[in-house]
Amino acid sequence: MAFLFNSDAARGAVFREAFARELPDLEFYHCNESIDPESIRYLLTWNVPEDVSRFPNLEVLFSLGAGVDQFKPETIPDHVKLVRMVEDGIVRMMQEYVVLGVLTLHREMLAYGEQQRRGLWQALATPQATDRRVGFLGFGRLAQAAIDRLKPFRFPLAAWSRSKKTVEGVACFQGDDQLGEFLQGTDILVCLLPLTEQTSGILNAKLFSRLPAGARLLHVGRGPQLDQGALIEALDSGHLAAAMLDVTDPEPLPQSHALWSHPKVIITPHIASVTQPHTAAQSVIENIRRHRAGQIPIGLVDRTLGY
Amino acid sequence: MAFLFNSDAARGAVFREAFARELPDLEFYHCNESIDPESIRYLLTWNVPEDVSRFPNLEVLFSLGAGVDQFKPETIPDHVKLVRMVEDGIVRMMQEYVVLGVLTLHREMLAYGEQQRRGLWQALATPQATDRRVGFLGFGRLAQAAIDRLKPFRFPLAAWSRSKKTVEGVACFQGDDQLGEFLQGTDILVCLLPLTEQTSGILNAKLFSRLPAGARLLHVGRGPQLDQGALIEALDSGHLAAAMLDVTDPEPLPQSHALWSHPKVIITPHIASVTQPHTAAQSVIENIRRHRAGQIPIGLVDRTLGY
Repeated sequence: MAFLFNSDAARGAVFREAFARELPDLEFYHCNESIDPESIRYLLTWNVPEDVSRFPNLEVLFSLGAGVDQFKPETIPDHVKLVRMVEDGIVRMMQEYVVLGVLTLHREMLAYGEQQRRGLWQALATPQATDRRVGFLGFGRLAQAAIDRLKPFRFPLAAWSRSKKTVEGVACFQGDDQLGEFLQGTDILVCLLPLTEQTSGILNAKLFSRLPAGARLLHVGRGPQLDQGALIEALDSGHLAAAMLDVTDPEPLPQSHALWSHPKVIITPHIASVTQPHTAAQSVIENIRRHRAGQIPIGLVDRTLGY
Repeated sequence: MAFLFNSDAARGAVFREAFARELPDLEFYHCNESIDPESIRYLLTWNVPEDVSRFPNLEVLFSLGAGVDQFKPETIPDHVKLVRMVEDGIVRMMQEYVVLGVLTLHREMLAYGEQQRRGLWQALATPQATDRRVGFLGFGRLAQAAIDRLKPFRFPLAAWSRSKKTVEGVACFQGDDQLGEFLQGTDILVCLLPLTEQTSGILNAKLFSRLPAGARLLHVGRGPQLDQGALIEALDSGHLAAAMLDVTDPEPLPQSHALWSHPKVIITPHIASVTQPHTAAQSVIENIRRHRAGQIPIGLVDRTLGY
């Protein structure tokens, strides 16, 4: 009975040590060691290997990341449980990045950056946080954690999700019917949706037109959710004031792409939140224990929803 | 008995309305109205008028800003109380700016901005917040409020001040003797000191050399506290990794100044925290009530300390 770690050696070493200590009965293999495929019960990976069927006894497939959109579900047998990464490190880094992004957009750091390039010392009139409405597209664990950090700043907060949710201090919207009302009342839009067929391309010209003039976008979902051309048009027309993107399509963004040099765009190379090996190892160990005890792993993917 | 508002008309209108409602017995004048100097008991101003002695019955001089270093104390009669602006708007804006600045420096936004200019998509290795020590030079009301917002991110926090203070969750240092130890353990240094003879020029080559290699500076105190040439040298030598400055000397910073175009420097034009007229008017009204009742106004300046 074995666990196969299919990622970089540095993180693998952290996992190996934690597994040796906490699950000594489970053999641990790194992907560049020779293995007996029949022994593999658990596989941790970012990209799924071409042919997962060579592990006939696979029980749980763990994603190294918070999303599972990089997996091709049709290549994964139905009886294999698919589990997203839910770990403190990812949550904390996303809290930092979302607060950083919202404050960057709220406090006009793009406009001040442009002024700095011109050597121009000029204060800009900016609304108070109580007059800057922050709305989350997607209201899962990461969005809720980010909202916890934003609350003390007194931004009016809203969130839109597929299914009904209720969180104190957050105006909750759900479903297609309420999307328009949600967008109308959002000055800073934070996208933290999982990538599914339904959310692919959701950040498009029509959605931008439903935001109030001067709205800003913070995109920390997945690249294919954004129509990058439509974003550039909305920024150039002045309807949107600024955007901060941690994800693009494709990644890496080609060096010649117009987004890199757009004065109203900040780009970071998909670093908002990165799985941290120490906390991730603990999370996977805990989920293996749950699985062995017949409990549902934390982060189990509903294949009909895709997340 | 009258109140004289010596600043811009837009803020003056907000004050006038609040005073009419809450202190109807007090006459209210804007500085461009004709006044009887003998009637003036209270003066609110940023810069002190050349000759304050033309108000023989002046009792309280209110600063429109959080500092009083723009005043020349020798021009103000001893019996006149000098009061700093302490109001919620200033506190909340400073909380935003300090969290924005610390996260900007922590998450390598200067390096990512440089990469963006080159069209380079490359993740940088960054320590977790628990390994990034944030230290405050100055531990007054604004620093304490900023620390409240930083605490949930789990940065190790420290503060240095002239007199002994104790705040839970913050390593407190005081006096010249402990400055070295404080600096040695600080990865992101936040300067929130008042400008006095003692703090003028405090951010100099010697202080920078006592910070660990790779440290970062967030300067939200006053321009004359920083030796700007020494900062550029410390950045160019690589000893300091980045700086974010909201104050410079002089202000405005001349367009030709080397700081504007330095790739490791972010400059904002003294906008970290701006007095908000609605909350400031309430604060001044409350202080006039306290003064009339024989109580000490909130923000009363100790002239021997200069803040």
